[in-house]
Order: sequence, then C-alpha cells, then structure tokens
Amino acid sequence: MGLFLTVEGPDGAGKTTQIELLRDYLSDKGYDIIVCREPGGTPISEAVRNVILNKEFTEMGHMTELLLYAAARAQLIEEVIRPALEDGKIVICDRFVESSAVYQGIARGMGIDLVYKVNQFAIGDTMPDLTIMIDLDAEAGISRKKKQAELDRMESETIDFHKKVVEGYRQLASLHPDRIYTVDGSLTIEEIHQKIVSQVNKKFHGKG
Amino acid sequence: MGLFLTVEGPDGAGKTTQIELLRDYLSDKGYDIIVCREPGGTPISEAVRNVILNKEFTEMGHMTELLLYAAARAQLIEEVIRPALEDGKIVICDRFVESSAVYQGIARGMGIDLVYKVNQFAIGDTMPDLTIMIDLDAEAGISRKKKQAELDRMESETIDFHKKVVEGYRQLASLHPDRIYTVDGSLTIEEIHQKIVSQVNKKFHGKG
Repeated sequence: MGLFLTVEGPDGAGKTTQIELLRDYLSDKGYDIIVCREPGGTPISEAVRNVILNKEFTEMGHMTELLLYAAARAQLIEEVIRPALEDGKIVICDRFVESSAVYQGIARGMGIDLVYKVNQFAIGDTMPDLTIMIDLDAEAGISRKKKQAELDRMESETIDFHKKVVEGYRQLASLHPDRIYTVDGSLTIEEIHQKIVSQVNKKFHGKG
Repeated sequence: MGLFLTVEGPDGAGKTTQIELLRDYLSDKGYDIIVCREPGGTPISEAVRNVILNKEFTEMGHMTELLLYAAARAQLIEEVIRPALEDGKIVICDRFVESSAVYQGIARGMGIDLVYKVNQFAIGDTMPDLTIMIDLDAEAGISRKKKQAELDRMESETIDFHKKVVEGYRQLASLHPDRIYTVDGSLTIEEIHQKIVSQVNKKFHGKG
C-alpha cells in the first residue's frame, strides 16, 4: 500500500503552493506521486464540482451540499485514490473529508458527527495516513484569494463564515493531533515546506 | 399538512401519463397540486440530474450514483416538497426513494438497507403517504421507452438490469403492502387511472 496525504486549510492558506513543492520533493526522491483536488479530480467529480461551486445556486441546502461533496469524493476515491494506493503510489489530495467536517459540520452547523457518518459511505477505510493543516487567519486567506481569481460560491461566503472555518480547523486539529499536523501559514513558503517534509518523512519511518 | 403521493415503476410503465391524469382529476376537485419528477424538479436538482444521466459517464461508481440521487432528492424536498406539504397542497412525485431502493439497492446490488440509510439523511420524515407502483415487464417497458426518445444512462442499461428492476419493485411492494399500491401496467390507461383514483380517495378518507 502507498501513502495517502491530504492538505487542508482555509482558502488562501497556500495549499496549492505547498502541494507543488511537496510533489517535487517526493518526485525527486523517486516516488510515484498522484496529486488531486477536491471537489474534483475525475470528469464526473469535476461535473459535480461545477454544481457545488456554481455561484447562481444560492438556494442550495446544507444537506444537498454535504451529499454532493460526498458523491464527488466517492468517485475520486474509487477511480483515482484507491487504485493509486493499491499500486503503492503516494497520493496528495488538496482537501478531503476534513474540509466537509469543517465547512459543513462546523461552519454550516450540521455537526461533525453527521458529516463523518454521511462520508463513511463514500470513504470506507480510505482515510489519510497524514493530514497537513495550514493554519491562517480568515482575513489574510481571503485577501490572498481575492488577488488570484474570481471567488466561487464557497469562497464568496461572509467573513464570519470564513472565521468559523478557521476556528473549525483548529478545533478539528486539537481533536485529532495524532493524524492532523498543523503548520503556521504565516511562516515563509520555504519554512512551511521544511516543516511539512519533516512530518512526511516521520510518517515514512512510521510505515517502516 | 397536505398529501404526498409518489408514482414508481420501471421505465416505460406509463408513469407520466398516469400522473397527468391524476393531476387533472384532483385539480378538477379543487385541490392545489404540485407535480415534480426525480431526479430533478429544482434548478440545482436538474443540474445534478444532468450529471447522473450523462451517457458519457460510464465510469460512475454505484456509491457516487446513490449519493447524487440523494443530493438531488434533498434539494427537491427542501425547496419544493416540504414547503408544499406545509401549505396543505398535494404533491405528486414521479419517482422517489423507492427508485433508489430498487435501482441502486436491488438492481445494482448495494442492498435496500444501505439505500434507506443514506437517504434517511436527505429525507428525514418526509415519506410518501402513498406510493403507486405501476408494474410492467421489462421488455414491454423498454420497448415503449425506445419509441419515445433517446435512452439516457440508466435507460441504456442491459435488459437483465431492467428485469432486476421489475423484480425489485415487486419485492419492495411485497415488503410494504401498507404503503405501496401495485397496479397492473398492462391494463388500459383508463383502467389504471380508475384504480389509482380509488386508492387516492381511500387515502383521503384515511386522513379524515
């Protein structure tokens, strides 16, 4: 079996940059790497992504949103993640079930337990070996994000919502210190990268 | 509270025709009627429908399919069905959770229990007061359907799949004779209509 890494954090925390650096680092070491993003990563999951993030869909109910994320996730796991892990590859996924726990469970107020229960059907036993959570205050994250591109339906939420997301990630990380590693997103890109590399290497040693 | 009726059966059984006749009958009696179809019935649910029924998406996993139907259903319930019932209207829905029980639970082999568990999150306590199941052999149904329009991803399944659907509906109806009323789809349109009207009237009397 390979290694399943997920990278979490609020919008604008720097997940994409860090995933690229980590991919290059592991690739240079000779590993086979698959990078994917949620929601998305397969043609079907990307079609679901387009529904979830469509800015016109302001009427979307919380349960609909939760189920759509779970559906996109189920497809990504079945088509990409599980086969890659079975092939011994390293999978790095930009967001995973912890995003649902934080965005729908905490920020939308549906409850973490409900989110994991629904997602259990999509995920089965394909849980990450390590989740890296890049922590950054909501204002800083959204201000970075606005400079990059037009905001989607989730990114366009109120600043209060994004603050709940940041608080939610901190709460979740404190509940699962064994599998969620928090790194300070206000450090330099290189400092964050070094900390992530160090954690990933520990995980390799842990796997033997 | 209003009355929630669903119409089920294999493709080509004549659901649409019977729903139109029932709507006209109840409308003439002065009731406020809402007719909807699954998957669909709201802009968001129709967008999900387009993903589910897209013929190019041959890679779709069974769990993805199940979760997408549940997501479309959650949105339809929240936006259309629950508000209409609270307004005292009659809702007639073309397919509902019994379709998932039969298509994903039985024909895809996921199990009825799993289907109801996943759908419980979408449905809550918004279950139909009466489900009318139009029974018709698979060959007859698909042959009718082919004459009407190009088949979608579900309709394009093998004849074996459609036979499992028909058997699945019979099995489900025998499990829940109290809430699923079976009518023989090989009768004339008018005969089927009269039988349905008679059942719906019984249900009205049952509600007082």
